[in-house]
Amino acid sequence: MKKFEEKSLHSTPIYAGKVISLKVDDVLLPNGKESKREIVTHPGAVAVIAITAEGKLVLVEQYRKALERSIIEIPAGKLEPGEAPEHTARRELEEETGYGCHSLTYLQTFATSPGFADEVIHLFVAQDLYKIEAKAELDEDEFVELLEVTVEEAEKMVKEQGIFDAKTAFAALWMKANQ
Amino acid sequence: MKKFEEKSLHSTPIYAGKVISLKVDDVLLPNGKESKREIVTHPGAVAVIAITAEGKLVLVEQYRKALERSIIEIPAGKLEPGEAPEHTARRELEEETGYGCHSLTYLQTFATSPGFADEVIHLFVAQDLYKIEAKAELDEDEFVELLEVTVEEAEKMVKEQGIFDAKTAFAALWMKANQ
Repeated sequence: MKKFEEKSLHSTPIYAGKVISLKVDDVLLPNGKESKREIVTHPGAVAVIAITAEGKLVLVEQYRKALERSIIEIPAGKLEPGEAPEHTARRELEEETGYGCHSLTYLQTFATSPGFADEVIHLFVAQDLYKIEAKAELDEDEFVELLEVTVEEAEKMVKEQGIFDAKTAFAALWMKANQ
Repeated sequence: MKKFEEKSLHSTPIYAGKVISLKVDDVLLPNGKESKREIVTHPGAVAVIAITAEGKLVLVEQYRKALERSIIEIPAGKLEPGEAPEHTARRELEEETGYGCHSLTYLQTFATSPGFADEVIHLFVAQDLYKIEAKAELDEDEFVELLEVTVEEAEKMVKEQGIFDAKTAFAALWMKANQ
């Protein structure tokens, strides 16, 4: 048995959406009692720490309806069914920034909200960037603006809440640690 | 108007739960077209980078039903209604680790899953820790195990996916950058 495992006694599907789904599981706790867990399921995503020849971090600003504000993030996007994360990383980088990359390295995977969601983000580092002549189209409901910042600028944006996103705060710190 | 703002035309409540709620908003995009946004609402949370006198990072291992595995995280927990984040931070640190702290400093706030959730985490740094004699009770459905690791051990755990959580990966990097 896995440590502190919570076995599902019953699972109730609540909603199946375009991006996420929601279910509520009745679980058996390690102490024999029962509880409920509300669980959002998500296809998983990639995010890309893309570094220009000048050592700048490539960022995109976009409106995030859940937060009712636009925020600045590293390029990222959902995995399509059956798509390899590396392919998603190249696709999203291209769509959101117009950059292709000669070097793409897998860094790590982490869960974003393990208390209520199964979303994981596969993080990649893209280097040797080049501008794509015929830029790929964004999704039809996606609007983004491109920024390129130095490590110091990224660090300042984190402190001043201009960067207000966990994966991007991680990327800014990672850039600083790996300069 | 906020940059790329998506105005809600209609909001449909789907589910109101114990921890999260779900709604689907019909929105007007900047190009005048319409789309749907699935939005999870969450009360917000705190997380604590707690550092022992020996310079070790305090971690807790717990089962996360959404991921169907136990993972290692920095101490964290949901905000109660009306509760100041600093108070939540002290409470969760005490409940999950048995540590109180003489020094608690606010570090930053970030969104965990801005694509579909409004959850933000307020991050604190706790130092000058002391063991509490009469340890506060965990929530009745919470089971955690305490670990204390060096910065090097935390870094290794991130690389080997022993740390599989965004806020904790951030904490490990932050520790390294601020040694």
